Amino acid sequence: MRNLLSMEYLTNEEVMEILLRAQEFEKGDDTLLTRSYNVSNLFFEPSTRTKTSFEMAERKIGCTVIPFDAGFSSALKGETMYDTVKTLEMIGMDAVVIRAKEDEYYNELLEGINVAVINAGDGAGQHPSQSLLDLYTIYKEFGYFEGLKVTIAGDISHSRVAKSNATALKRLGANVRFLCPPEWAGDFEAHHSWDELIEDSDVIMLLRIQHERHVVNKSFSKESYHEEYGLTFEREAKMKKGSIIMHPAPVNRDVEISSELVECERSRIFNQVRNGVFVRMAILETILKGR
Amino acid sequence: MRNLLSMEYLTNEEVMEILLRAQEFEKGDDTLLTRSYNVSNLFFEPSTRTKTSFEMAERKIGCTVIPFDAGFSSALKGETMYDTVKTLEMIGMDAVVIRAKEDEYYNELLEGINVAVINAGDGAGQHPSQSLLDLYTIYKEFGYFEGLKVTIAGDISHSRVAKSNATALKRLGANVRFLCPPEWAGDFEAHHSWDELIEDSDVIMLLRIQHERHVVNKSFSKESYHEEYGLTFEREAKMKKGSIIMHPAPVNRDVEISSELVECERSRIFNQVRNGVFVRMAILETILKGR
Amino acid sequence: MRNLLSMEYLTNEEVMEILLRAQEFEKGDDTLLTRSYNVSNLFFEPSTRTKTSFEMAERKIGCTVIPFDAGFSSALKGETMYDTVKTLEMIGMDAVVIRAKEDEYYNELLEGINVAVINAGDGAGQHPSQSLLDLYTIYKEFGYFEGLKVTIAGDISHSRVAKSNATALKRLGANVRFLCPPEWAGDFEAHHSWDELIEDSDVIMLLRIQHERHVVNKSFSKESYHEEYGLTFEREAKMKKGSIIMHPAPVNRDVEISSELVECERSRIFNQVRNGVFVRMAILETILKGR
Repeated sequence: MRNLLSMEYLTNEEVMEILLRAQEFEKGDDTLLTRSYNVSNLFFEPSTRTKTSFEMAERKIGCTVIPFDAGFSSALKGETMYDTVKTLEMIGMDAVVIRAKEDEYYNELLEGINVAVINAGDGAGQHPSQSLLDLYTIYKEFGYFEGLKVTIAGDISHSRVAKSNATALKRLGANVRFLCPPEWAGDFEAHHSWDELIEDSDVIMLLRIQHERHVVNKSFSKESYHEEYGLTFEREAKMKKGSIIMHPAPVNRDVEISSELVECERSRIFNQVRNGVFVRMAILETILKGR
Repeated sequence: MRNLLSMEYLTNEEVMEILLRAQEFEKGDDTLLTRSYNVSNLFFEPSTRTKTSFEMAERKIGCTVIPFDAGFSSALKGETMYDTVKTLEMIGMDAVVIRAKEDEYYNELLEGINVAVINAGDGAGQHPSQSLLDLYTIYKEFGYFEGLKVTIAGDISHSRVAKSNATALKRLGANVRFLCPPEWAGDFEAHHSWDELIEDSDVIMLLRIQHERHVVNKSFSKESYHEEYGLTFEREAKMKKGSIIMHPAPVNRDVEISSELVECERSRIFNQVRNGVFVRMAILETILKGR
Repeated sequence: MRNLLSMEYLTNEEVMEILLRAQEFEKGDDTLLTRSYNVSNLFFEPSTRTKTSFEMAERKIGCTVIPFDAGFSSALKGETMYDTVKTLEMIGMDAVVIRAKEDEYYNELLEGINVAVINAGDGAGQHPSQSLLDLYTIYKEFGYFEGLKVTIAGDISHSRVAKSNATALKRLGANVRFLCPPEWAGDFEAHHSWDELIEDSDVIMLLRIQHERHVVNKSFSKESYHEEYGLTFEREAKMKKGSIIMHPAPVNRDVEISSELVECERSRIFNQVRNGVFVRMAILETILKGR
């Protein structure tokens, strides 16, 4: 593994290796890398948890983190992604973590670049480190993927998380179903009601309504979204024993999920954040060692 | 001490403990914490000295500082303060230092949050680390608070510093007086002329005119403010022997104080900045050790 | 050397000392400073390579880097450069690296400031660390400066790089020529065609067209600039054996230079970036040791 660009490029074996390594980190393995690598985080879109999680993971495995202020960089002067990343390579970076608005921005970086590229979200494309932490959260809970019923609910067609997770979960043997308003399904075959899904789901994975990308109240208000597609108290009460609730966050409280369910017993929403650090340690270590 | 939210929550004993520990740091104590703690600084309002001072203090006592870009975080996506701080807790932070626009934003964080919260300024509320460094500056100068005549001059009702310092200084036995234009007094009982104050003040504490919050030139120009309420050469000449001038900075030169007095013999303005690092080391150490 | 403000203040001996020390760093010298110095980077204008390069160099020689968010600092509240830098001195900084919009902003810092100031670009003034890395790139290539024919092409009158390099190269014995559209020459005596320059230049140093400062398409489009003043394939083919192409970057591809020449054999554009780290290590070490 030289880069992490999209879940589509990972084999099941590579996925499992990362999950198992993450588990070792969670159990307290504090092996540092044999030398200090230089890493920089290029976030061209706002982020709290992904960026901070990478910052923590990088330090925990012993990297030197060189700050990069994407909102105040030469990208403002029209510099291409290739030139920005090549510049960071020449300055001595071993890896760059990138979030950018453009789908598959990384295609520009496949040739001529010798620094590792870790995709932390590309437009409406993929978000593989989030996907891996979601998989890790599920794996910790159930110990397997085969046959698990996973329902992904929300703005499917615009969601990086939906795409990344659907790809990976299906390949690992899970039974993935989608729920969304008809106009948000895009190319996905989706359910439009919780009725057939709420009682037998092992995992309910809620997606953030992207106010940034998608105006909710064109077709319905926040309240009516919550009523029709959100996880309400009534719906949560119907969920089967041992099933869990996930959300990549930030949560729109009382839209995707009732505010009071965010930290309920079934919820793994904040655990996902915690798991993310171990998974990103595993991703970084695997990639940096492999080069 | 598990958090530092407001001077109102600190006993005189807790205040003195921090001042004395700051003094040890200033004298060269370089004891590091027994383990490395992770800290993040969340500044939702511009700041140079407070943020940089915390950044320095954190490194000096051996913390790992995880960067957080408040101007480019999920707060932009409407995330609540609770969710942001809970996320940072799950990522592994031991303490967060927060400056935010909302008065008492920290009330949202009193339950369910296990990370230490250090208030670096809440709206027009409190600014306790500034207050403690002001107290330390006075304590270094006089060795006691009892009976000291302290005059606080400026935009009293909007000043976090005025509120924090008034609370603490009175409780420590100082005689605190306020000076400001009648329309800025708010709930405070204030003088409106230097006449009764200039000659017997031990400490004159000038406050920054908050252009951001308060348009000066509605009622008077910068020049007329300086003339009526600023510290001019003529006024400084009347100050008693051994008395000092303080200002939390940034200074509006020739408004609150004549530009040429900023570094005069009586001025402790830049010393305050220096003292701030030792005081913040003491705050951080006390809180992190106490958890 | 206590500061680095302008190439005009450096003797040839000081320049050569830095180049030779940079070469030692490039060859693998990993001597750290005898104590850890605190450094902060104040970039009031966007930058990728200069800021990131300093960040890397500082860490490589063992400095502690204290972050400073210029876009979110008290400068927004109208604080003077003197007060900002004095504040950072009191907080414990040993050196500050500054990029600012104002020409010779550093004149404000010559008195009363005890922290080292490294100019990373002042308005349309100088950019000495870029100049030193350009000199290092030339020195590595040729081993001498005496008699070298160096052509500097582009927006001469607004370019910090042109000014800094012209000053230094002439003094070191190089034969410096300028090329630009007549209206961009300013006080420089410049050629307006490549004809007399392309075949005998040892170094062609292209300058970035400053869209920020200068609207290109008033007098000509990007295409016509490229045609008349850019480095095209045809022109590159006429360059003499052993000659090199330089550009401080970010490059406007297909304006100053044909996109496909950016990484051609003659190009040292990305090598310059790599050299910058060693040169900045030498600058920082020289200044910090000298204090």
